[in-house]
Amino acid sequence: MASMRIDEIVGRLGGELLGAPDTLIRALAPLESAGPEDISFLANPKYRKQLDTTAAAAVIVSGGLTPPSGKTYIVCESPYLYFARVAQLLHPESLPVPGVAASASVQSVIPASTCVEAGAHIAESVVLGEHVFVGAGTVVGRGVRIGKGTRLHANVTIYADCEIGSDCRIHSGAVIGADGFGYAREKDGRWVKIPQSGRVVIGNEVEIGANTTIDRGAMDDTVIADGVKLDNQIQIAHNVKIGAMTAIAGCVGIAGSTRIGARCMIGGQAGIIGHLDITDDVVVSAGTLVTKSIRKPGVYTANLPLQPHGDWVREFSHLRHLDAMAARIRELEKRLDKGDTSS
Amino acid sequence: MASMRIDEIVGRLGGELLGAPDTLIRALAPLESAGPEDISFLANPKYRKQLDTTAAAAVIVSGGLTPPSGKTYIVCESPYLYFARVAQLLHPESLPVPGVAASASVQSVIPASTCVEAGAHIAESVVLGEHVFVGAGTVVGRGVRIGKGTRLHANVTIYADCEIGSDCRIHSGAVIGADGFGYAREKDGRWVKIPQSGRVVIGNEVEIGANTTIDRGAMDDTVIADGVKLDNQIQIAHNVKIGAMTAIAGCVGIAGSTRIGARCMIGGQAGIIGHLDITDDVVVSAGTLVTKSIRKPGVYTANLPLQPHGDWVREFSHLRHLDAMAARIRELEKRLDKGDTSS
Amino acid sequence: MASMRIDEIVGRLGGELLGAPDTLIRALAPLESAGPEDISFLANPKYRKQLDTTAAAAVIVSGGLTPPSGKTYIVCESPYLYFARVAQLLHPESLPVPGVAASASVQSVIPASTCVEAGAHIAESVVLGEHVFVGAGTVVGRGVRIGKGTRLHANVTIYADCEIGSDCRIHSGAVIGADGFGYAREKDGRWVKIPQSGRVVIGNEVEIGANTTIDRGAMDDTVIADGVKLDNQIQIAHNVKIGAMTAIAGCVGIAGSTRIGARCMIGGQAGIIGHLDITDDVVVSAGTLVTKSIRKPGVYTANLPLQPHGDWVREFSHLRHLDAMAARIRELEKRLDKGDTSS
Repeated sequence: MASMRIDEIVGRLGGELLGAPDTLIRALAPLESAGPEDISFLANPKYRKQLDTTAAAAVIVSGGLTPPSGKTYIVCESPYLYFARVAQLLHPESLPVPGVAASASVQSVIPASTCVEAGAHIAESVVLGEHVFVGAGTVVGRGVRIGKGTRLHANVTIYADCEIGSDCRIHSGAVIGADGFGYAREKDGRWVKIPQSGRVVIGNEVEIGANTTIDRGAMDDTVIADGVKLDNQIQIAHNVKIGAMTAIAGCVGIAGSTRIGARCMIGGQAGIIGHLDITDDVVVSAGTLVTKSIRKPGVYTANLPLQPHGDWVREFSHLRHLDAMAARIRELEKRLDKGDTSS
Repeated sequence: MASMRIDEIVGRLGGELLGAPDTLIRALAPLESAGPEDISFLANPKYRKQLDTTAAAAVIVSGGLTPPSGKTYIVCESPYLYFARVAQLLHPESLPVPGVAASASVQSVIPASTCVEAGAHIAESVVLGEHVFVGAGTVVGRGVRIGKGTRLHANVTIYADCEIGSDCRIHSGAVIGADGFGYAREKDGRWVKIPQSGRVVIGNEVEIGANTTIDRGAMDDTVIADGVKLDNQIQIAHNVKIGAMTAIAGCVGIAGSTRIGARCMIGGQAGIIGHLDITDDVVVSAGTLVTKSIRKPGVYTANLPLQPHGDWVREFSHLRHLDAMAARIRELEKRLDKGDTSS
Repeated sequence: MASMRIDEIVGRLGGELLGAPDTLIRALAPLESAGPEDISFLANPKYRKQLDTTAAAAVIVSGGLTPPSGKTYIVCESPYLYFARVAQLLHPESLPVPGVAASASVQSVIPASTCVEAGAHIAESVVLGEHVFVGAGTVVGRGVRIGKGTRLHANVTIYADCEIGSDCRIHSGAVIGADGFGYAREKDGRWVKIPQSGRVVIGNEVEIGANTTIDRGAMDDTVIADGVKLDNQIQIAHNVKIGAMTAIAGCVGIAGSTRIGARCMIGGQAGIIGHLDITDDVVVSAGTLVTKSIRKPGVYTANLPLQPHGDWVREFSHLRHLDAMAARIRELEKRLDKGDTSS
C-alpha cells in the first residue's frame, strides 16, 4: 500500500485542507478504530461526537460542519465519495502483467497486452480489447467479444457469442450466457426446450459479483447497461433489460423479460417476477417480492416484522382469518347503525 | 442459423398450412417485433389484435381462431408448443466434435465419441455413454456414470460416484454431489459431521441450470427423476426426491429429505422446508415458503403485497397487534350482545 | 466401506451394549429401512414404535428407554451424536494421496504432503500446512495461507491474501475473498468503487458449502470463527463477523458489517440486513428477514402461513387495509362508549 501526504491528496482530489499539510496518510479506517496514520470520514452527522475522540490523522468532513479544532481535516461536498477516491489513491490497482500461462489454452488471436492465467480457456473467434485479464480457470466461449481493460477473475464462465464492454469486472464463479429457462409443455407434462438463441450484452464499467448468473435471451438478448453494479449470487433470467447505473444487492432474482430502469437500487434477496416494467429511480427494499410493474419512482417494500417466535405464532395465526375479522367489523357496524345492542 | 420453407416445416411437424407454401422462414420472433422473414405465434387470445399489425412472414395459431386473411398461418392445437418445435428445427444443435483437448486430464477409458474440452478432468473409474460432452474446466469425479448424449457445460463439478442419465444438460457452475449439511451437536455446541455416504442419482432428459447445487444423500440417495427441469441457483439438499417432469424456477431452496411429486411447478425464490411431502401436480407461487406437506394438487401461495414504503409502514405496524385487534373485536361483540353501550 | 463388530464399536465409542457382542455392522440406515446388517438409532421418542418392527441388526437408544427385548442395542446419552460417530467409524476418510498432477500449476513452495489435482492453480507466496488437498480446477490466489488438513474440493476459488485455518472443508464452487459490494455514489448516479482492501479470515474446522460466497472486507476483514458450518449458496458480505460454532443453512444472505454471535442457528433462505448485532445462541427460522439487532437469545421468526391460492387472495387483500380496519375498531369503541347506537 502506498502512503501519501495529505496536501498531495488535496492537490489531486480538491477540497479544502484544514491543519497540517504534511500529515502522512497510510491507510483508511472508520472513525472509531482509526489510528494516527489513518484517514477517516464523517458522512453521517449522527456520528459527529466521534470527531472528539477519534485517533485518526485526518478526517474528511462536509462543509456545513465546524469540526473540533486541533486536528487535520479535508472539507468537501460529499465526504463518503471523497473517501472512496482517497481509497483508490491509496490502493491503486496494478495493471495485469501481459502474458499467457503455459497451461492456458487460447484458440483466438489476442492482443499482446492480454493476461491469461493458468488453465484458462479462450475458444475460437474471441475478440479482446487491450489489457483484458482472464483469471485462472476462466472459460471464454466461442465468438465472445470483450472490451479493453475488463477483468474476468478466476473460474468465470462466459458462454459463446456474448458481448462484454470495457472496464468491467466479473468475479469468480459468475456465469454469463447460460441458457434461459424456456420450455413449452406437452399435454402429458413433458417439457420441450425452446432454443435460447439470443445473447447477453453487457455495457461498460459493469461489475458482476461472485456466482452471479445472467442467462442469454431466447430470440432477443439479455441486456445490462453501462455502469450497472451487481452483487454476488444474483440470478438474471433471459431477456431481462437493466438500465444504466442500477445497483442490485446480493441474492436477488429477476425473472424473464422484466425491464428495470436506470439508477434503481434493489435490496438484497428481493425478487422481481417476469414481464414487469420497473421505471427509473425505483428503490426496492431487502426481501421484497415485486409482483407488479412500478410506474412511479420511490421506495417500495413488502416484508414482515421480525418477532420472537411465540409472538409470531400468536399474531400470525390471525392472518388466516383476516377475512372473518373484516366481516365481524362490518357486522358490528351494521348492528350499531341499527341500534341492535341486545343479543 | 438454417432457413426453411414453411411447407417443409408443416411437412415435418404437422398442422394445417393456410397461405403461401413457399414462404421462407429464417428466424423466430414475437408478434410485435417480427420482420418479413420471421415466424411468430399467438398463444394467448388476449394478443389477437397483434395479428392485424404484425410484419411476420407467418404466424402459428390455434384452431378455434379465424385469423385475418392475406397472411400465412400454421393452424395447430398448441401454438406455443409448435413454436418450440419450429425453434428446434431452425436452431438444430450441433453434435459436439469428438476428441480430447491436449490440456484435459482423462483417467478413465471413454468412448471415442466423447468431446472433452480444455482443462477438463475426468477421474478414474468413470463410465460414459456415447457422445457425452465435457466442457472446459469441468470436473467429473471418480466412479461417476453418465448416459449417452449428456452435455456438461464448462466449469461443472460432479462429485464421486454420482449417476447422471442420458440426454441431460448441466450448465456451468452447477455442483452435483457435494456433501449434504448433516451434523450432530455436542453439548458444548460443537458439530460432529455425519458422513454423507449416499449419492445423487439423476434421470434422463434432466436440465440443470447454472450454479445450481444438488447435495449427495446421507445413507440414502438424492434422486432427480426423468424430465425434471431446474433453473439457475437452485439448492437441493440431501435425500430430496423430485418426481418426473417437475419444473423449478431460479433461486429455489429445498431442504433435506423432502419429497416432491411429478409435474409440479415451483416458482422462483420459493423455499420448501425439510421432511415434507408434496404430492403430484402442485404449483407453488414465487417467493412462497412451504412449511407443511401438501396432499392435494393445486396452487399454493404465501407472499406479501408490494406497497409504497410509507403505506407498508402504516399497514404493517398492525401486524404486530393482530391479536389485540381480534380481542377488541370480541370485546365489542360482547358489549353489543349485553347492550353495554355507555362508558 | 468397512464393516465392524458391535463390541468393537462400543469399545471405541463407549456406551452400554445390550445383546450379541458379535453382531456385525456394515452400514447405517434409518429405522424404517434398515436391514439385518445395518445399525440405526432412535433419537426421537415419537418413533419408539419403529423399534418393534425394524429389521436393523442393532439400534442406538438413550438411557431412559426400555427397548423391546431380543434385539441388540447400544445405550448412550445422545443417540444421534453416537450415530454420527459410528458413521465416521464406518466411513473413514482416506487421507489424500500426496502429489501434484502434471496439469496443475504451482508457483509456491508447498509441503510434500500436499495433494494438488489436475488443473489446479496455486499462485505465488502461498503458505500451506501439511496434508492440504487442492481439488481439480481449484484456484488459490497469491499470498493465501491455509492450515493443515484443510480440503478444497474441485473448482473452489480463494482470492489473494485470505487465511483459512486447519481441518476446514470447502466445497466446489465456493468463492472466498471476492470484492465486497462497496461504492460511493456520484450526484449523477455513477458508482465509484471503494477498494476492498481487507481479507477473509476463516478459523479451524469450518465447513463451507458448494457455491457459497464470502466477500473480503473493505479496510477491515471478514471473519468466520472456529467450528462454523455453512451450507450451500450462502452469501456473506464484507466485514461480517460470525461467531464460533454457528451453523447457517442454505441460501441465507448476510449483508455487510453484521455481527453474528456464537452457537447461532440460521434457517434456510433467511436474510440478515447490514450493520446489525445478533447475540449468541440466537435461532432464526427459515425464510425470516432479520431487520434489527437481536440482543436476547431465543427463536425469532417472520414468515407467512402457506395457503391455497384462493384463500390467500381473500385473506391477504386485507393486508392493504389493516390501518382502516384498526380505525374502524376504534370508531366502534368510541360509538359504544358514547352510547351512539343509531345511524
